[in-house]
Amino acid sequence: MKIGILGTGMVGNAIGSKLVHLGHEVKMGSRTTDNAKATEWVKDKGPHATHGTFADAAAHAAIIFNCTSGGVSLEALKLAGEENLKGKILIDVANPLDFSNGMPPSLIPSLSNTTSLGEEIQKAYPKTKVVKTLNTMNCFLMCDSSAVPGEHDIFVCGNDANAKEIVKSMLMEEFGWKSIVDLGDISGARGTEMLLPIWIRLYGINQSPNFNFKIVK
Amino acid sequence: MKIGILGTGMVGNAIGSKLVHLGHEVKMGSRTTDNAKATEWVKDKGPHATHGTFADAAAHAAIIFNCTSGGVSLEALKLAGEENLKGKILIDVANPLDFSNGMPPSLIPSLSNTTSLGEEIQKAYPKTKVVKTLNTMNCFLMCDSSAVPGEHDIFVCGNDANAKEIVKSMLMEEFGWKSIVDLGDISGARGTEMLLPIWIRLYGINQSPNFNFKIVK
Repeated sequence: MKIGILGTGMVGNAIGSKLVHLGHEVKMGSRTTDNAKATEWVKDKGPHATHGTFADAAAHAAIIFNCTSGGVSLEALKLAGEENLKGKILIDVANPLDFSNGMPPSLIPSLSNTTSLGEEIQKAYPKTKVVKTLNTMNCFLMCDSSAVPGEHDIFVCGNDANAKEIVKSMLMEEFGWKSIVDLGDISGARGTEMLLPIWIRLYGINQSPNFNFKIVK
Repeated sequence: MKIGILGTGMVGNAIGSKLVHLGHEVKMGSRTTDNAKATEWVKDKGPHATHGTFADAAAHAAIIFNCTSGGVSLEALKLAGEENLKGKILIDVANPLDFSNGMPPSLIPSLSNTTSLGEEIQKAYPKTKVVKTLNTMNCFLMCDSSAVPGEHDIFVCGNDANAKEIVKSMLMEEFGWKSIVDLGDISGARGTEMLLPIWIRLYGINQSPNFNFKIVK
């Protein structure tokens, strides 16, 4: 499948690499055509890994991953272009972390609590099918659920039922997820993005990002 | 042990009833001496269940539970009185839920994200040992961890190590908790209070409050 990755950080790198490895045609997008991290990323990956601008990556893809920093996601999507996003599935992996108050980060007030990054992206691009998932864990666990042994959950939410089904299949078949918790429409993103503060706290306490949430009932 | 319960709602009622049942001397506190719910609560519970003002309940107790609504907790504690809270363990069970934007509630901005209710209480009463716990679940599960089968976690945080140990013992011995996750100092309350939005969402989806979080690693 043709996949676009917006963002050249650890998350975009990990998801992009996994998808290339699985045989997908992945284009990594950034602000410029000569981004150093994207240029480095395509090396030795063969013809299925390419890079370009945000717009190039979005235009290329049937499914787009938003792996940009939450604080600049709306700006990156603007550069990707409404026409290139229209009708497509956008998997929003980003969190609206606010580093302006120092560490640990809080959440950007205008993108949290009474709204969420996922909701704001869906509002800005009503013809794009936004599915929020993968944002409650480390990027290596995202791509391989067995990085943490035992049973644990991944959350999914979005307004388009069909898009969610496609994303769930992808999570199961490509990334090995067995237990998917569907939180309903995109406003479920509020709760998953607000998991970040305890996630960051647990990361510090466990001295490892290799953990995940499970809902026991 | 002499225990004070601040608040006459479902949470105070459930915790107070459990502690009376276990043989503790519990005084439920509210704004007035003739609160209808507190008067009802003491009925048929014998001499170990009494009620009075917030100040009466705090003065009576060695350990105090804050079971008031998060939005009025600081006001209730002011009525309880700094002198009556000094040197004591205050178990803060409340969440700063904001119902002013309708349902589902969000969190009160001045008590979340870059701070928390737990932290603000600790700041306001530096001589009180605030321990945040029990706020990430339904009140019946609080008092009996077996209400949800299997392994799942309760979070505890606070600045005073000794107070935390006493609270942990209480959680284990009185309420049956086996797996306690210590999140460090009181600023860990930020993460646990921010679990509420996903908890509320899951409550709606599961159509039951009988679930809990587990950290799998």
